[in-house]
Order: sequence, then structure tokens, then C-alpha cells
Amino acid sequence: MLYYPRPLAELLSHLEKLPGIGPKSAQRLAFHLLRASQEENTALAASIAVLHESIHPCANCGNFTDQEICGICSNPRRDKTLLCIVAEPRELLAVENSGEFHGLYHVLGGLINPLDGIGPDQLNFATLLPRLDAEGTREIILALSATVEGETTASYISRQLQDHDIKITQLARGLPFGGDLDYADQMTIAGALRGRRDLT
Amino acid sequence: MLYYPRPLAELLSHLEKLPGIGPKSAQRLAFHLLRASQEENTALAASIAVLHESIHPCANCGNFTDQEICGICSNPRRDKTLLCIVAEPRELLAVENSGEFHGLYHVLGGLINPLDGIGPDQLNFATLLPRLDAEGTREIILALSATVEGETTASYISRQLQDHDIKITQLARGLPFGGDLDYADQMTIAGALRGRRDLT
Repeated sequence: MLYYPRPLAELLSHLEKLPGIGPKSAQRLAFHLLRASQEENTALAASIAVLHESIHPCANCGNFTDQEICGICSNPRRDKTLLCIVAEPRELLAVENSGEFHGLYHVLGGLINPLDGIGPDQLNFATLLPRLDAEGTREIILALSATVEGETTASYISRQLQDHDIKITQLARGLPFGGDLDYADQMTIAGALRGRRDLT
Repeated sequence: MLYYPRPLAELLSHLEKLPGIGPKSAQRLAFHLLRASQEENTALAASIAVLHESIHPCANCGNFTDQEICGICSNPRRDKTLLCIVAEPRELLAVENSGEFHGLYHVLGGLINPLDGIGPDQLNFATLLPRLDAEGTREIILALSATVEGETTASYISRQLQDHDIKITQLARGLPFGGDLDYADQMTIAGALRGRRDLT
């Protein structure tokens, strides 16, 4: 019989619901919080509690922000004619972290997935078309997962925009950086062959 | 330049201070909290914020509790004549989890460590001697780490209690369960030899 005081047991049950936190990590975190100062715990608790009040989707692109318009959309130094479409804000961060992209983003909030009942109406498409005219978009880069849902969403966007004079590209398929050809699956190799680059 | 809205950046900085949480895990947790419901986040935040108000050391043994006296000390089915001395509450839990001990505990709150300026006065010794008489302790089990600090603390306790008619034992030194002799260090092998058991 393992005895925990009730408030500690409650904290553990909340911590164990977090991704990647099992019973052992939860206990480690809880004992850390018991040793931490009241100020530190109050600050952590407050920053969790205010999250939903203070963070909401950017009215323009759908990225998380605490302003009306996010810091990327409102940055005058970003190239407004390049638009990168991603499914989720964390994927926006992944592209942003690459340091290779200096345009604007559009966050769909997911991918088209008929099996889960997610169609275009459930995603952030309503604000996409008005943006293209307003921002004078020249190229749309589809930074979507290389999955069935990603491909379905990419086809849908291509069809919707076929009458617009906008170049549509998608992230290259190929070997990941450091990837060993021996361990690459056949789909990856097929994609890398189709997208092969001329080095001459 | 990686852009986070300020409340998200604050949450990340708090999460990254937690043990075992790096920038990547903090981001994963933060995005989980952004997707979680307001109710879940409020519950988690509240359970962190109330921790210091509701949890304090047991007046008898020093274990964490939300009562005056913890659930182990107040359990009439525990053997009051056996007292297990540990350094920290999480070590109490480790012993308790073994299922092998049914007596009471005494939590020191640390180990004697002259280099860090921790002497007996900084530890929970004041309530130890009165307990021995009040509870009729017959045996004290020292469940302290097999380190210099653990040994120093064990010697100190033995000296303090040499005039009491109480048996003092300590956890066996030996190979850990599943431990391979090839990989055991010489101190462990020496301890296991000294503590060898007669199987005949």
C-alpha cells in the first residue's frame, strides 16, 4: 500500500496526464515542486492558468499569439509574397527554426482526414483566399506532413487555387539529413529519385 | 529568430527549470497545455499552487503530509517498535514500495555533510530521541545511501544511541538485484563479501 497525502496524489494524477510523463517522472517532478519555493510554484501555476486567457490564434494566420496579429504577420521585414502553409503551430516553429524561410505562414489547424470527419470546413481555409489578394502572394509553399492526410490536403489546396496565378510548391521528399540509404524505406527512396538534383 | 508569444515564452522558461525537462520537452508540454481544456489547466495549476499550503512535514516523522500526523504514523497496524531512518521523503516511498517494511519511519531531511555545512543541527534529530521512548523502539533500521555522507550519518546515530538498549541495523550492502558481477565495482564486491550469507 503506497501512501501519498491527498494534495500530492492529486498533483501526481495531473502530471501523469501530460505527454511523456510517466509515474516515475511525475513523482520526480512533484518532489522537485515540494522542494521549490512558493514563489517559483506560484509563477509556474500562474503561467499554466493564464495560458488560455492570454494565448489565442492570430486573426490573420492562425498561429498562437497574445496579440490580435502575431509577431510574424506584423513584422514588416517578412516577405509578404511568400506564404508557407502548415497544419499546426508547432510545425510553424519547426519551419521557422530552420532559418530558411522569411515569408508569412498560414496555420490550417489540422489536415483533411475524412476518416476522422475532418474536412476543409473544419480547417482554417476561410481566411486563406482573402489573404492571397491582400498580400499579393506569389508562391505558396506547402509544408505538410508526407502522409496520406498531408497529400490529400495538398491536392485540395492545389485544386482550390488552380485559377489563381500563384506558384504552389511543396517541401522536397528525400533522405533526411544524416539518413542512411540502407535504412530508408522504399517510398522515401522513390521520392528522392523523383526529386533528384542535377549536380553537373 | 524564434518567435514565441510572451505568455508561452514565460511558461516555457518555467517548465525548463523542472528536472528532466529540456527545451524540446518543455515545448511539447506547452503545446499540450495549449490544446488541453481550460478546466484541465486550471486543475493542474491549482494543484501546483496549493502544494506548499497543503503539504508540510509530519510533526512526528517528517514525512510529507496534509494532516498534522501522516498516514503511516497514524496507522494503528504499523509496528511502532521498528523505526526506519531515511534522509528524504522520496526514499521513504522507495522503502515503502518494497513492501518489506511495516514499521514507522523517521525522515532526517538530508545527510550529515560537513563540506556543505550540514551538521546534525540542520537535520530532524530533535524529535528522534523522544520518539524512541514514546514508541518503545526495539530496532532502528538505517536506510541511508551507501555514500560517505550516509556512513557519516550512520556513525553519528550509532554514537548518539550507544547508551540506549536499541538494536541498530543498516541496509545490506551487496549486488543489486539483476546485477552482473562483471560490472560490480570493488566496493560493492567488498561489501557483498563482508555481508555474505550462509546458504547451508
